[in-house]
Amino acid sequence: MLRTHTCGELNKKHKGKKVVLTGWAHSIRVFGKKAFIDIRDRYGITQLVLDDKLKDIYSNLTRESVLAASGKVALRKEQNPKIDTGEIEIVVDSLVVISKAKPLPFEIFNPSVESTEETRLKHRYLDLRRGEMLRMLEFRFRAEMITRNYFSMKEFVEVETPFLSKPTPEGARDFIVPSRTFKGNYWALPQSPQQYKQLLMVAGVDRYFQIAKCFRDEDLRKDRQYEFTQIDVEMSFVDEQDVVNLTEGLISVLYSQLLGITVKKPFAQLTWHAAMDKYGSDKPDLRFKIPLGDLSELFKDSGLRIFEKEIEKGGVVKGLFTKEKFSRSEIQELELIAKRHGFPGLAWVKSEDEISGPFASKMSDSLKSEFSKKKGIYFLLAGKWLPVVTALGNIRLSLAEKMGLRKGLSILWVVDFPLFEWSETDRNLHAVHHPFTSPKQGFESQLSEDVSVADLLEIPSRAYDLVINGVEIGGGSIRITDKDLQENMFKVLGISKEVAWEKFGMLLGSFEYGVPPHGGIAFGFDRLLQVMLGLKSIRDTIAFPKSKSGRALMEGAPSEADLTTLGELELQK
Amino acid sequence: MLRTHTCGELNKKHKGKKVVLTGWAHSIRVFGKKAFIDIRDRYGITQLVLDDKLKDIYSNLTRESVLAASGKVALRKEQNPKIDTGEIEIVVDSLVVISKAKPLPFEIFNPSVESTEETRLKHRYLDLRRGEMLRMLEFRFRAEMITRNYFSMKEFVEVETPFLSKPTPEGARDFIVPSRTFKGNYWALPQSPQQYKQLLMVAGVDRYFQIAKCFRDEDLRKDRQYEFTQIDVEMSFVDEQDVVNLTEGLISVLYSQLLGITVKKPFAQLTWHAAMDKYGSDKPDLRFKIPLGDLSELFKDSGLRIFEKEIEKGGVVKGLFTKEKFSRSEIQELELIAKRHGFPGLAWVKSEDEISGPFASKMSDSLKSEFSKKKGIYFLLAGKWLPVVTALGNIRLSLAEKMGLRKGLSILWVVDFPLFEWSETDRNLHAVHHPFTSPKQGFESQLSEDVSVADLLEIPSRAYDLVINGVEIGGGSIRITDKDLQENMFKVLGISKEVAWEKFGMLLGSFEYGVPPHGGIAFGFDRLLQVMLGLKSIRDTIAFPKSKSGRALMEGAPSEADLTTLGELELQK
Repeated sequence: MLRTHTCGELNKKHKGKKVVLTGWAHSIRVFGKKAFIDIRDRYGITQLVLDDKLKDIYSNLTRESVLAASGKVALRKEQNPKIDTGEIEIVVDSLVVISKAKPLPFEIFNPSVESTEETRLKHRYLDLRRGEMLRMLEFRFRAEMITRNYFSMKEFVEVETPFLSKPTPEGARDFIVPSRTFKGNYWALPQSPQQYKQLLMVAGVDRYFQIAKCFRDEDLRKDRQYEFTQIDVEMSFVDEQDVVNLTEGLISVLYSQLLGITVKKPFAQLTWHAAMDKYGSDKPDLRFKIPLGDLSELFKDSGLRIFEKEIEKGGVVKGLFTKEKFSRSEIQELELIAKRHGFPGLAWVKSEDEISGPFASKMSDSLKSEFSKKKGIYFLLAGKWLPVVTALGNIRLSLAEKMGLRKGLSILWVVDFPLFEWSETDRNLHAVHHPFTSPKQGFESQLSEDVSVADLLEIPSRAYDLVINGVEIGGGSIRITDKDLQENMFKVLGISKEVAWEKFGMLLGSFEYGVPPHGGIAFGFDRLLQVMLGLKSIRDTIAFPKSKSGRALMEGAPSEADLTTLGELELQK
Repeated sequence: MLRTHTCGELNKKHKGKKVVLTGWAHSIRVFGKKAFIDIRDRYGITQLVLDDKLKDIYSNLTRESVLAASGKVALRKEQNPKIDTGEIEIVVDSLVVISKAKPLPFEIFNPSVESTEETRLKHRYLDLRRGEMLRMLEFRFRAEMITRNYFSMKEFVEVETPFLSKPTPEGARDFIVPSRTFKGNYWALPQSPQQYKQLLMVAGVDRYFQIAKCFRDEDLRKDRQYEFTQIDVEMSFVDEQDVVNLTEGLISVLYSQLLGITVKKPFAQLTWHAAMDKYGSDKPDLRFKIPLGDLSELFKDSGLRIFEKEIEKGGVVKGLFTKEKFSRSEIQELELIAKRHGFPGLAWVKSEDEISGPFASKMSDSLKSEFSKKKGIYFLLAGKWLPVVTALGNIRLSLAEKMGLRKGLSILWVVDFPLFEWSETDRNLHAVHHPFTSPKQGFESQLSEDVSVADLLEIPSRAYDLVINGVEIGGGSIRITDKDLQENMFKVLGISKEVAWEKFGMLLGSFEYGVPPHGGIAFGFDRLLQVMLGLKSIRDTIAFPKSKSGRALMEGAPSEADLTTLGELELQK
């Protein structure tokens, strides 16, 4: 080692010791004939004191240059209790500038001097010098170690599944890799190890996990990344409760060992229907209440035709209530949310000394007296149940944001998801989770092309989602393990038997040689870290992320490939 | 859980207990009115005993079907000491076939019934059911856990570096990934995290490791894989000895914890020159001796012109000696090796009762008497030093193979590699390790286009290789950390400053903002496991490997991509 100690380990016990420290010139202050340099490494900061014998060196020194300083540990006159090494300083007898830094492209350590995220990503090796970033990398690694130890203790085996895999649409776009050996053919980077982990169950691995890298060619503006990390789990001979128990153990170990927070087990559970009905979301944020209320009874014979008509058509009137005060412009902002969900507007009723609002004049006295029981504001929507609760769910989040209620910790399971959802875009059924999710026991025979879409939409699944603070952190299910049922599933999704075997043949085929019942879960690891650390973006949990525009700014990628490579792949234009 | 116990945990202490076991029908034997089924899972095998009440089930049962059996634990009359559960059997009262297996495509457990590797790879989920394979997956995971714990204890941080990176030739062909967002541009899968780990040093991470996946588009026939796993390490403020010590600690912990073998530290070290000169290899197998001897003195004035001429031209005469007997056809096989290395043939001298061999008749009496001092056979080559020792090195391995000497354990470092080697193919200098390897101190100024090729080839580097049993397991170096020196390095390799900045700009740029001295090492993890477990191929260390022909046989990949995807990437023909 070129140093005797790190910049974080010396204290008064080392008084008088000859030491060599190496690190970066964090700050340089010159007072008359003396100079003070804070030397920094990953482990801490230590103060160096130099007299004017070293003036030639320190007067030309630039911040962030790399130094080697040798000298003697001395007690400080004024101790700095804020840092671990605050009791001591080094009286330097020799200082070597190992690597000189030129002027920095942005202020690394002073957040009050603004810099764009683009500049920081372009020079990520400087941005990572910030203590928060180095702590984040350590936190991430500790989270991975805790996760691996947890699964290892429980006899799980981490198995590395392939990166060069078969193109298989799983809901998002594949990244594909042209094969040089087999021209015109492609590999695909895995969207998840889903099929591999199921095959490992068929192989008898029994308990599999992997901290796996997954790839999706999606729009990054919604705080996603092309490549993300997933804690991937699969178990044989289990039912839902086994996966739930295992997961609750992991999450509570992570929270307690990393943050010192004890989470209560078992976690709360809400059915998908209750979550949607009460909170307007399949990943409800329960750190605050503001539930959706059903006002259909109240409006059924209210004389307000606009509401009555929706109820007569089988719809609902639902609303949110809060005591918070809202200005006109704030209400207009909330109305925009309703409009984005296809509603003509957002109805509201203010209950103060008197009842006001856009249709207050048309309200009957009895209706008014109902609303005047509580002082505050009601936001109302009428229409079909799913769009109404979804829109109100988003308005609910917006209210909470404005009221500063989105803090604290709330962990819950959402269970009993429907197996299918209807997509207006391609006018077809989609799997809510993925096509490998099993229907609830007893509904297997309903999985058939002969069953109406309405009835198919009623089939419950054996899927479960883990939600923390309104963010979907993990999702999983008990899987289909019957070849015929799996084929029927594909048929209902509009995938013929031929295409199913072409795309998922390895899994379907494996089901013919003895497949154990199995199920599992997958967590978005970056997202979990983001929620645990309260960070603004998943980019802040990743050492070298892609920018919002989908570029690697530091590397200058993607970029042109050289012509030899393109030629070998027959990709030249 | 659908079971009360695994198939590996019951013993006589459980006598009388009601249990439910789940697993695969490993074997089915029917004797009169009784049937014996071995039920198997990852944890073991348990014997089930069924009477003829269950005849309808067991008489139709196929091997490898998945079962759930409930019954009572009973002591066996004849115990089987070979298996953990050999004391007991289960008297079954109910048996359910959860998943019926159709006839198997190959004999999974009986190695005497031959099956091709292709068949087994196509049904890898069946091949993995073999105990050896499941043990291998567990071994691999334990090796990873030991590695991670080792580095974690020493304050290293595992950092995940990107998979979608910049196309950068590093000696092998890149896999490239077309970008949809930036048409005509490409990502590349990393050949190694080399630049990223150096940037992490610039960032101040100080001690980095990663069990990293790397990608090279190479020919797989030489027992390689497109994607392989690397233990990747980098440290700041270190010299060679620090990396050597760290590595020796890791290797000895792996050997002792996984195999119960104590390896002696420090490991032996050979300079590159000594390794080549004495063993004809930069990764010598030292489990056996058979060193290369220098016979130049002996042949200098021997009158044998063919040898004398080579010595006069500055060449050498080197030879191998062994007491083993060789037939004519065996010698011819060894001669083929010499011919593959460009020699016209292989000279040999047999020393038995008298001296024989192709040129024995022309040997002087004094030369003959030298050879007759030891009884055995000498193999000789004359010519330039490097080709001579290289060819003899391969002959040496072939001798050892024939003599059964390639067993045991030998670990050593090869150090003081030259910085450059000459490539006849493109008539240019190549970096022996990679262009980021530092020359030895004092040779920095020699890195210049003005220096002759002969002199450049003499520059020693700060590189070191770890060799186990004649296999290069790891290699590393202290890196160049000076921008100008790095630019000169590229220039000598024929890469102009412009191209260097275009390809390696992020690293060169980072050196301008304070770079610590650093170095590291990378191990081929699959290869290490192969050597530790004595396996024939690295394919046997990987859950889902590619076949020798470069295909994923189970997945049926690579394959055609769908037209929508190709269209979005503008790749359709």
